[in-house]
Amino acid sequence: MQFELTREYLNDLKEAIVRNDELALIELVHELHPADVAEILDELELEEATVLYKVLDANIASDVLTHMDEDKRDRFLGSLSSKEIAEQLIDNLDSDDAADMLNLFAQEQKEEIISMIEDRQQARDIVDLLHYKEGTAGALMAKELIRVNVSWTVSTAVKEMRKQAEAIDHVYTIYVVDGEGVLVGRLPIKKMLLTPLKTLISDIYDSQIKFVKVDEDQEEVVSIMEKYDIVALPVVDELGRLQGRITIDDVVDVIREEAEKDYALASGISGDVDSSDNVLTLTRARLPWLLIGLLGGILGARVIELYEGDLQLYPEMAFFIPLIAAMGGNAGVQSSAIIVQGLATKSMGMSGILPKLGKEFMVGLLNGLVCAVIIFGYNMIFGDSLALSYTVSLALLSVIIIATLFGTFVPLILDKYDIDPALATGPFITTVNDVLGLFIYFIIGHLLYIA
Amino acid sequence: MQFELTREYLNDLKEAIVRNDELALIELVHELHPADVAEILDELELEEATVLYKVLDANIASDVLTHMDEDKRDRFLGSLSSKEIAEQLIDNLDSDDAADMLNLFAQEQKEEIISMIEDRQQARDIVDLLHYKEGTAGALMAKELIRVNVSWTVSTAVKEMRKQAEAIDHVYTIYVVDGEGVLVGRLPIKKMLLTPLKTLISDIYDSQIKFVKVDEDQEEVVSIMEKYDIVALPVVDELGRLQGRITIDDVVDVIREEAEKDYALASGISGDVDSSDNVLTLTRARLPWLLIGLLGGILGARVIELYEGDLQLYPEMAFFIPLIAAMGGNAGVQSSAIIVQGLATKSMGMSGILPKLGKEFMVGLLNGLVCAVIIFGYNMIFGDSLALSYTVSLALLSVIIIATLFGTFVPLILDKYDIDPALATGPFITTVNDVLGLFIYFIIGHLLYIA
Repeated sequence: MQFELTREYLNDLKEAIVRNDELALIELVHELHPADVAEILDELELEEATVLYKVLDANIASDVLTHMDEDKRDRFLGSLSSKEIAEQLIDNLDSDDAADMLNLFAQEQKEEIISMIEDRQQARDIVDLLHYKEGTAGALMAKELIRVNVSWTVSTAVKEMRKQAEAIDHVYTIYVVDGEGVLVGRLPIKKMLLTPLKTLISDIYDSQIKFVKVDEDQEEVVSIMEKYDIVALPVVDELGRLQGRITIDDVVDVIREEAEKDYALASGISGDVDSSDNVLTLTRARLPWLLIGLLGGILGARVIELYEGDLQLYPEMAFFIPLIAAMGGNAGVQSSAIIVQGLATKSMGMSGILPKLGKEFMVGLLNGLVCAVIIFGYNMIFGDSLALSYTVSLALLSVIIIATLFGTFVPLILDKYDIDPALATGPFITTVNDVLGLFIYFIIGHLLYIA
Repeated sequence: MQFELTREYLNDLKEAIVRNDELALIELVHELHPADVAEILDELELEEATVLYKVLDANIASDVLTHMDEDKRDRFLGSLSSKEIAEQLIDNLDSDDAADMLNLFAQEQKEEIISMIEDRQQARDIVDLLHYKEGTAGALMAKELIRVNVSWTVSTAVKEMRKQAEAIDHVYTIYVVDGEGVLVGRLPIKKMLLTPLKTLISDIYDSQIKFVKVDEDQEEVVSIMEKYDIVALPVVDELGRLQGRITIDDVVDVIREEAEKDYALASGISGDVDSSDNVLTLTRARLPWLLIGLLGGILGARVIELYEGDLQLYPEMAFFIPLIAAMGGNAGVQSSAIIVQGLATKSMGMSGILPKLGKEFMVGLLNGLVCAVIIFGYNMIFGDSLALSYTVSLALLSVIIIATLFGTFVPLILDKYDIDPALATGPFITTVNDVLGLFIYFIIGHLLYIA
């Protein structure tokens, strides 16, 4: 039952495209889900995709585009006229998907497309949605939903719902509003199934309902929907009037995006790239963090240069330079990751910064002691300088503790000033701790060797 | 409307607990959502939590536990008797949550609790669910759902649904089965609203339905539900008989968990820890990767020791040891992260390993050239050895290219052999590339200085 895109299938399809064999193409994509067709289009060249797209059924063609890989889709949209986009795509999409797609175009073409939308209600909804700032509840919501008036009977409600239901894919929740359009509650589908038709909605609706304002931040939206297991969250304006609803599938996308962004930052990748992007895009996304690393390396070189005299006398000190630098980086990244994760999932509890630093100090101390003892043992067995053994172990202990505290402190401070704490993970922390570690190592070495 | 846990609120609550003032407590938690009460319990000491828990309304007390922080909940459950757990908790939970909770207990207490469950249907459902392996669709699903027989009329269906609806929170989808219980399709709520009561289900149901088998892997479940925007995915046994359904809130949890796991691995943290865990747990989760780093540092020390003679003659070579090691690590982590992310979201396209390596070679070459030119410029201005300038730039270029290829290759190979590719990110890749980088640096340096 599950569709799987195979190389054979793709070859058959490409041959049918070359032959321009419309019947064979229809046969091949017949009854496929839009998400599967999108997967196929992602694998085709632009010209091939255009041929296939033309044979698609009108009512799936628009959904197919919402499932496509963004880069591929953008190029594909570029090959369509404003009229085609308005009539074949925008008219058939949910208002939120339509608005997202329109946002891909420059202002001028955007307006041209909007003027060509046949369904004027849809055009109004889309224009409304385009006003909301990206990253807010308003920008995330769809206008399509089912609303009933609190003064209606179940029978009237059912009649009205039939009309409204035509336009939407999933019902999820029936929202109850008053005469002014103000959200007052919800009508559980269960209850509607169980109540006589003459009952008034006001007698059976549930006034306990979670909602957000249009300008609420999307991270707050995600947090509320996750915490309360909400599948469709209503969005209201400043006067409490129902404006739209945010469905769980959009929230899943946001969760994915934010997790990917944090992961990318922790790995030193800026911007939203994936392995299918081209070489230049991939290079550009990585270069900034490599340059930070380079800068750190240069600073490290300067630190070592300061102690060139020590190194000439005791070249064995150079042996442990990579160890000290790497361990500072590792310990710092670990601490910052735990803090970033805790902030993202709001599982940090209510304690302040000081108790957290105290706890991390203990963690750093324990880990540092274990590592220092191991490396001391190694140096006693394989090394031949007692001073070096002391230096390396003492420096390692200090570096791990300081890096741990630093990795805890920086994301907490960033978060306090509303800067994304994920910026503190990855190459930034690693680089700073590398340099810091070298300083500590050589200062301790200098003191111990001279003594 | 939104509940926010403040310090003042918490103080009031703690005072009421000390006074053992039941009325004040009820007043304080009155009408709060179970998720909010759970948040409060997470902030209290075990004894305080027990007092508050006793005043909770029976029908929210069980839901509160499913929202609590795992560690806190486990300790809390330890303070309840098997009878209390069976009657107050398990009886009131959905079968999937009940099974998850039972899995927290040792076999003996588990059986004791099951024997005390009053609702025998619930007990049977739970025992069924306990049989499925963790990480499969069967372990993720709930038994509660609404099913109608394909041979019924809409009128019979509505009557039967009323009974079934009592037991479940959200309807989402009405599943259609045949006389054998085999899943044959779904009945859109919309359609049911629009059809005369005498219509046969067989005339209006939709036979296009996505489903999974009980033993399907949970990652596949997530992928299907995300790809096709499914809110409740039915699960069938080997004979196609409907066994349960997986709802989107469970899938959101899985997505979060997997993202957190990958993030933790990339940051060198093993196991599922968060900042509220105790010092020992936090230390233990980080030590393994620090030890890997330590091992890498020791290997690095051995590499440098091999070239001690060179270092004595040209101590300035030591300056750039941290730079070379760090850049290898950074470039490797970047590549592996892009591959791991691509594998996780299945956005890798269909090309094989060789084209991917070719592309990454180009990325590494470009980034390597930029960095090599910059560091060459730096050394020409601030350094005083032409040989060192050549050595550092040439080594940096080689290291970035090799680390990039290595970071691409390793996760792809791990994935091919069904090992979690995320293991290849973070400290492992960093450490290997550190050592590799040092080797390259000293080999090139040795050759250039001697020549």
